[in-house]
Amino acid sequence: MAERQVYMDHGATTPMREEVLEAMSPFLRGHYGNPSSLHSQGRLVRRELEKAREQIAEALGVDKDEIYFTSGGTESNNIALHGVAAARNVPGHIITSSIEHHAVLDVCCELEKNGHQVTYLSVDSYGRVDPEELKREIRPDTFFISIMAANNEIGTLQPLEEFGKIAAESKILFHTDAVQAVGQIPLEPGQLNIDLLSLSAHKLNGPKGIGALYIRRGVTVSPVYQGGGQEKTIRPGTENVPGIIGMARALELAVSEMDQKRDMLTRLRDRLISGLLKIDQVRLNGHPLERLPGNVNVSFQHIEGESILLSLDLQGVAASSGSACSSGSAEPSHVLSALGLDHHTAHGSIRFSLGRGNEQADIDYVLKIMPAIIDKLRRISPTYKPKAG
Amino acid sequence: MAERQVYMDHGATTPMREEVLEAMSPFLRGHYGNPSSLHSQGRLVRRELEKAREQIAEALGVDKDEIYFTSGGTESNNIALHGVAAARNVPGHIITSSIEHHAVLDVCCELEKNGHQVTYLSVDSYGRVDPEELKREIRPDTFFISIMAANNEIGTLQPLEEFGKIAAESKILFHTDAVQAVGQIPLEPGQLNIDLLSLSAHKLNGPKGIGALYIRRGVTVSPVYQGGGQEKTIRPGTENVPGIIGMARALELAVSEMDQKRDMLTRLRDRLISGLLKIDQVRLNGHPLERLPGNVNVSFQHIEGESILLSLDLQGVAASSGSACSSGSAEPSHVLSALGLDHHTAHGSIRFSLGRGNEQADIDYVLKIMPAIIDKLRRISPTYKPKAG
Repeated sequence: MAERQVYMDHGATTPMREEVLEAMSPFLRGHYGNPSSLHSQGRLVRRELEKAREQIAEALGVDKDEIYFTSGGTESNNIALHGVAAARNVPGHIITSSIEHHAVLDVCCELEKNGHQVTYLSVDSYGRVDPEELKREIRPDTFFISIMAANNEIGTLQPLEEFGKIAAESKILFHTDAVQAVGQIPLEPGQLNIDLLSLSAHKLNGPKGIGALYIRRGVTVSPVYQGGGQEKTIRPGTENVPGIIGMARALELAVSEMDQKRDMLTRLRDRLISGLLKIDQVRLNGHPLERLPGNVNVSFQHIEGESILLSLDLQGVAASSGSACSSGSAEPSHVLSALGLDHHTAHGSIRFSLGRGNEQADIDYVLKIMPAIIDKLRRISPTYKPKAG
Repeated sequence: MAERQVYMDHGATTPMREEVLEAMSPFLRGHYGNPSSLHSQGRLVRRELEKAREQIAEALGVDKDEIYFTSGGTESNNIALHGVAAARNVPGHIITSSIEHHAVLDVCCELEKNGHQVTYLSVDSYGRVDPEELKREIRPDTFFISIMAANNEIGTLQPLEEFGKIAAESKILFHTDAVQAVGQIPLEPGQLNIDLLSLSAHKLNGPKGIGALYIRRGVTVSPVYQGGGQEKTIRPGTENVPGIIGMARALELAVSEMDQKRDMLTRLRDRLISGLLKIDQVRLNGHPLERLPGNVNVSFQHIEGESILLSLDLQGVAASSGSACSSGSAEPSHVLSALGLDHHTAHGSIRFSLGRGNEQADIDYVLKIMPAIIDKLRRISPTYKPKAG
C-alpha cells in the first residue's frame, strides 16, 4: 500500500460529490416515474426535471428552453456539429482547431466525407488559436466555428470572447466544447457570443452518462436520432432523471464555489509546476498562465509518459498520459504534436489534473516521489545523458 | 390521499430494485475512475465494466464482444438502423412493421429521406405481423428487417423465430427492438437468428439512461457519433459506469426470476382483463394470449383514455393512455390505428402495465374503482347510450 492515495486525474473524470448523490437519491428510489407519464408520479418527476433545467440555465446565464439534456459531452458535440450541418441544404465550410477533442475533430472528418469542408486552425506553442488567423480563414460559405474553451490535455484557455465577436460579426454560428471549462472558469454564452455550448456532468463532480447542450434560441439543429420526441426532438429517449438532477446540483455547486476553488487550484497547480520544473530536462506544456486552474502537463525528455504513470500509480498517485479517451493508443497526442513537440518529447508527457479534494500535502507528496521516479526511469533510458553540470 | 397507491405503468418505466442500487453504489462513490484511465482506479473500473458486459452477454446467451453499451433503447435502435444503413454504399430496402416504437419508425422515415425505401408491414387485429407477408415483401435489395419483440402499447408478442428464419434464409439482417420484452420472455438472439437487439435498463427495474445493443459478430455497423473510440467506436463517450453495472445486475435478476415472475404477472394480468371485460362496451386490445405477461390494454367506448387516466390517478393508480413517449399528443396511437380501431375507440384506450411489486390486491383495487370511474365519465359523455338490457 502506498504512503498516500492521490487522485490527480480530474480531467478524465471526477468523484461525485456527496451532495450530488443526495440530490439524486430520491430519483434513484421513490421518484422513479417517467417524466412523460401523465399521472402524478410522472408529473412530479417532470416538475423536478424542469427545475433542474432551470438551475443549469441559471448557472450559464441562459434561458431554460435553451438547455437540452444529452448523455454527455461527446453526444453534445455530435448533436451540435452533425445537427447544425444537417439543418443546411448544401455543404459548407467549418472552422475548428487542430487541438479539439476527438468528439469534435472526428465529427469534422465525418462531415468532410459528406461534402463539407473543414479548416483545422493551427495553434501557437502554448496551444492558443490566433483570432487573426480565425478571421482570415472565414469564407462566404463558412457556417460554423467550433473551438474548445479549454484544452483537455494541456489546459490552455482560448480567447473565446474574441472568437465570439468575430463569429457574431460574420454571422457564423459559434460552438464551444466547454466540457473541461464549465464550472472552472466563468463562461456565459450570452456575454461571449456563444451559440452552442457542450458540457458534461462527470467532469464537474457530477454523475457519468449525462451532459447538456446549450443551443441559443433561434439556432436550427436537426436531430441526429429519431424517437419519442423528448427534448423537443433534439435528443429523444426517456430522460436520465437521476443523472439530470445530479448534473444540475453539481453545476450549481461548481459555479457557486468557482472563485474559491479556482484560487485554491491555481495555487496548488503553480506549486506543482514550479516543483516539477526543478527536475532536469522537463518542459511545461500549455500556457503558463492562461490555463485551467487544475491542469499541469509536463514532458520529461528520454522517458515514456506511461512509464511515469505506472510508477506514480504504484505509489498511489493517479495521473494520465494524454487524455483518457485515447489512452492506450500508440500515436502521440495530436494536441502535443500541434504544439510543435517532437514525437519523442510528446511521448514523455504526463498530465496531473487537480480538482476538488486535492490539497497541498498531495502536491508535496508528488513532488517528493517524482525526482526518484524520473531518475530511475532515465537510468534505464538508452537516450538519456545528464546535462553537464 | 387515495386508499391505495398502485403503480401500473411499468411499460413506461419501472422502479429500480434495491439490489440494483446496491450494485451501483460503489461506482457512485469510491470507484469513480474513468475506465479508459491506465492507473489502478481506472483499471479496476474497467474490469468491473467488462464483467458487467459478460453478465449481459450471458443473460442473452451471446458473446461479450457482441454487447455495446448505449444510453438507452432509443439510442440502440438508432445505432442499429442508422449504423447498418450507413455501412452500405448504396440505398436499399428495409422492412419494418407499422406498430414499431417511434425510435424505429421515425428512423425509418429519416432513412427514406436519404434514399432508402421502407415497407411498413401491416398487422392483424391482434397486432401480429404475418410471416408470409414478410416473406412476400422481401426484394433483392432488402438489407434490413426490424420488427419489435413485443409491442409497448398492446403487449402483443411477434413470432420472432419465424421472422428470424426468413431473414436468415434470405441473408437479410434481422433487428429486434426488445426493449419491452427483455427480462419478460425468453429471448436468445442465437436461437432466434437475431442479428441486432436493442434493450433498455429502466424497463427492467434497472437505471435510466443506459441501454445496450447486441450486434452479432460479423455485422458491420457504422458509428453515428464520432469521438474517443469507446465501445469499439460504435458508441464513443465516457462510459456511464454506474448505469452499466446497474443494468447488468437488473438483467441478471430479471432473467433468473423470469419464469416465476411471468407466471405471477400472467395470473394478475388475466384477472385484470377478465374483470375489466365485465364492464359494458369495452374491448381488449392486442392478442389475448400472445402478449407480454404484464400488459393490459383496453378501450372503453365513449370516453377519453386521458380522462380515465386522470380519474385513476386521483385514486392512486398510475396507468397510461398510449405510450409515455407520445403522451400529450392529440394524435390517436399509431399502434391502435394499425389494429383497425377507429379514432374514437383508440382515444378511449388505457394501458395497465404490471410489473414487479404488483399483487392481487392491486388488481382487486383497480377492479373495484373502475366501474364507477367509467360510469361517471360516460354519464357526461355526449355519445354514450347504455345498451338496452
